[in-house]
Amino acid sequence: MKALISSSEASKLILAEAQATPSIRCPLNRAAGRILREDIVADRDLPPFDRAMMDGYAIRTQNAEAKADFVVTGQAFAGSPQITLSEATSSAIEIMTGAPIPQGADAVIPYEWTKSTSNDAFTLTSNEPVSSGLYIHRRASDYPNGTVLVKKGTRLGPAEAGIAASCGYAEPIVNQLPRIAILGSGDELVPVETNPEPHQIRQSNAFAVENALANAGYPVGKVAFLSDDESAARPELEAIIGESDIIIISGAVSKGRKDWVPNALNSIAENRFHGVAQRPGKPLGFWKHKDGSVIFGLPGNPVSSLVGTHRYILPYLNAIAGKSESTIIQNVCLAATVQPLPKLTFFLPFRFNNDGNAIPAPVNNSGDYASLTGTVGFLEIPAGDKTHQPGETFPYYLWT
Amino acid sequence: MKALISSSEASKLILAEAQATPSIRCPLNRAAGRILREDIVADRDLPPFDRAMMDGYAIRTQNAEAKADFVVTGQAFAGSPQITLSEATSSAIEIMTGAPIPQGADAVIPYEWTKSTSNDAFTLTSNEPVSSGLYIHRRASDYPNGTVLVKKGTRLGPAEAGIAASCGYAEPIVNQLPRIAILGSGDELVPVETNPEPHQIRQSNAFAVENALANAGYPVGKVAFLSDDESAARPELEAIIGESDIIIISGAVSKGRKDWVPNALNSIAENRFHGVAQRPGKPLGFWKHKDGSVIFGLPGNPVSSLVGTHRYILPYLNAIAGKSESTIIQNVCLAATVQPLPKLTFFLPFRFNNDGNAIPAPVNNSGDYASLTGTVGFLEIPAGDKTHQPGETFPYYLWT
Repeated sequence: MKALISSSEASKLILAEAQATPSIRCPLNRAAGRILREDIVADRDLPPFDRAMMDGYAIRTQNAEAKADFVVTGQAFAGSPQITLSEATSSAIEIMTGAPIPQGADAVIPYEWTKSTSNDAFTLTSNEPVSSGLYIHRRASDYPNGTVLVKKGTRLGPAEAGIAASCGYAEPIVNQLPRIAILGSGDELVPVETNPEPHQIRQSNAFAVENALANAGYPVGKVAFLSDDESAARPELEAIIGESDIIIISGAVSKGRKDWVPNALNSIAENRFHGVAQRPGKPLGFWKHKDGSVIFGLPGNPVSSLVGTHRYILPYLNAIAGKSESTIIQNVCLAATVQPLPKLTFFLPFRFNNDGNAIPAPVNNSGDYASLTGTVGFLEIPAGDKTHQPGETFPYYLWT
Repeated sequence: MKALISSSEASKLILAEAQATPSIRCPLNRAAGRILREDIVADRDLPPFDRAMMDGYAIRTQNAEAKADFVVTGQAFAGSPQITLSEATSSAIEIMTGAPIPQGADAVIPYEWTKSTSNDAFTLTSNEPVSSGLYIHRRASDYPNGTVLVKKGTRLGPAEAGIAASCGYAEPIVNQLPRIAILGSGDELVPVETNPEPHQIRQSNAFAVENALANAGYPVGKVAFLSDDESAARPELEAIIGESDIIIISGAVSKGRKDWVPNALNSIAENRFHGVAQRPGKPLGFWKHKDGSVIFGLPGNPVSSLVGTHRYILPYLNAIAGKSESTIIQNVCLAATVQPLPKLTFFLPFRFNNDGNAIPAPVNNSGDYASLTGTVGFLEIPAGDKTHQPGETFPYYLWT
């Protein structure tokens, strides 16, 4: 392991390697969560016509002012072309929400404000003021044709999908998903479905990391396990590196005699760092292969492995997806005191209290997965000596 | 529309119909985000043996105290059965992280604290205290065999997937996904890929709702569009209701003459409510079909439609999935004043400021999707008269 670098330095070195994945067209209903690689631009005024905002009657306000009877002379439906209000001031058109306001009308009176006086006539029964423009959603009042409604780099969430559909983007241009491989390592690991010998443990980190990435919208293409025997495992490692964009190796990145992985990686890829001044997860390593793929070496401890995934790998995946807000970190207020670590960045699991502030929930040790259930994510507490007080704010990361 | 009911009453009536979907076994790597329908129980002590926490040497502390030389007599690897430290007090076993502590050893000294004196010998160079148990993760110290590590009803997030794997749950029992159909309605709607006439708009709400559910882990099986012509569309509506568990109808739930849908629903299903005292989204309706399926009628306005999805439909989906924390609402602190609505629950989009407090970001009108981009979700502000001040807390829902 080289000299430790700081967490923010590690983050910078990782993001410096973030090359955008290719852009592809993707059907809108399969693009949930993807990152837009093009602006979504209004191709017409929004709304495209003066539009009724209520079910009721389109009228001339001059008649409403006189409290006269209205005579219904026609009906305007959503999806039908604009019609015309006949010239008599008492004329009204029954109109449905979403229909174009008839030519000559300047307000919509909701049904609830009226009372039928005959089959075709009604009076206004409400004392609400009826002013010109009432319940009319004016053409272009939201956005004129040509407005950029959603910027390139935005995640296609529900609102963005709706906007893209409104503007005719049936197959928006989004990020192509990278090829991700997760490699477990360590001869002590046995498959989940086996009954381990006392000295063995079941493979679990790879499932945790795979789950984290899947929940964030990054499906993992390959999961494999490397033996501690270099001669057997090294060809497999190199083959997987060759067919993946991002390789995540869980375990086998510390200094143990059987941890051949770091040396193997150093001989085929450029090491950017190995060892970060943080707890948990100090032995984190990062390599850049000459063919463009990147390799993350995560510590074998479960908590370290998950923290590393959320703190470094997901931001990298968001960055290569082209997410513009990938570097914006959210902050939260402490609900209790926190003692920082003198020389290490401290990643501290927490949950929210009723006021939305952070209650620290430290784990017993970095092998203790189980105490993470019930936490929502972790705080990032910079190295320091001074106890932090309730009310101070710190960046946080949520479990996916 | 019947008399308006309150938002909390609507929520109660909806959740009262939440019948759990069937339980199924699902391979762990495809269960990301699902809800556990069984407890995850430790099937052995955790850790299962006294385990080295560092790479280094397993020794007897009595020798470290004497500052004597150590002689390396063997190696202990992770994944190999426990070995025994020979009886001489100076004996040491080179040991790797994760390996069982050799019988007779009571501490692990990290490599970094030592210096080789010959091929097989080393001295302790560090002044750190070496006490019995140093860098030994004791058997059962995290959790003894039989401990419930994750409770039924918990979402299978990254940590839970790791725990399930550790305990041998290769195919945990989780919720079966429901069959969800989304129906758009309104003759003004045309397909996304078409160039609309002036009086037409493209179908967009269905995509927004589908995206919201997909991001939350609830894929939508069917999306269709109903014509305003009842005789043509009603058989299609009934067929889709027959083959779905949850039917979401966007639009066609208000009082307009062509809105035949509420009456058709009333004749085949029991209406639980129609009309909620809230903005946006007042015309929300909810029906229970005799065959067990439920029908949500969402208003046709895009913002109303999304708010209804996140406020009512996703909590219902979480409840039938069996999520135990589905009723836990998170709160956030206001960063600015908010004027409530006198008689309506107010769903107010917001974003977070740097301190994690909520900056309200009201939309221009409930048709204005585009102003939702950049917001993270919405606050729920109860009906009232008194202006709310910064520092007051309110429940919030995040866009998915």
